[in-house]
Amino acid sequence: MNAADLRSIYQEYLDCINAQDWPRLGDFIHHDVSHNGRPFGVPGYRAMLENDFQQIPDLRFEAELTVCEPPYVAARLKFACSPKGNFLDLPVNGRTVSFAENIFYEFKGGKIKTAWSVIDKIAIEAQLS
Amino acid sequence: MNAADLRSIYQEYLDCINAQDWPRLGDFIHHDVSHNGRPFGVPGYRAMLENDFQQIPDLRFEAELTVCEPPYVAARLKFACSPKGNFLDLPVNGRTVSFAENIFYEFKGGKIKTAWSVIDKIAIEAQLS
Repeated sequence: MNAADLRSIYQEYLDCINAQDWPRLGDFIHHDVSHNGRPFGVPGYRAMLENDFQQIPDLRFEAELTVCEPPYVAARLKFACSPKGNFLDLPVNGRTVSFAENIFYEFKGGKIKTAWSVIDKIAIEAQLS
Repeated sequence: MNAADLRSIYQEYLDCINAQDWPRLGDFIHHDVSHNGRPFGVPGYRAMLENDFQQIPDLRFEAELTVCEPPYVAARLKFACSPKGNFLDLPVNGRTVSFAENIFYEFKGGKIKTAWSVIDKIAIEAQLS
């Protein structure tokens, strides 16, 4: 698979989760997926995303930049959203905050096998102070 | 420039900063560099790194993963180091902490022109609690 194919699959994955089309999630997520070292499998990965959308009703995943070198995709995701209550242990309480997530994915068989994510908590703290 | 060339330059850059070989920094950093939106130029970029090494005497930059698609490099840097005093507003006070930095670079003319970095503050908080 070349970089263009991988970029296309990754965009389809973002479209899938933005549509909250959970029955299709297994088309993009490997059965043996792990996220930040947690061996989630597809059900655990789905539960993480469903919880994200419950806590952040206006959540939308948009890649500002993708860097593709098979089998890896690195993405800089930009968010502008309004988490209910606490988010990352910060009292956001429905305010709209903007922040980035820099995330790496390893693909296997065209599906996400491993994800390593870092969210810019420092940027959110600065907006709340 | 292909991905292998860019990966090689990036590793030379890491070697340069680990050696704190500041006179060579301009070989790798574009005169018009910005870091997380701050238009540093080479002197400001150098000052940031010099401050990092002053605050963290055992600092060492090691890439666990690099994803190269010219003109971009994405790197997952892994640190195990002992910041003096406060680090990211956390009272680390010389304890050894382990954390990742997920960072994207845009190169221009073989030099780093733009960097977008996110440090995993949440992981450090977990180690201090």
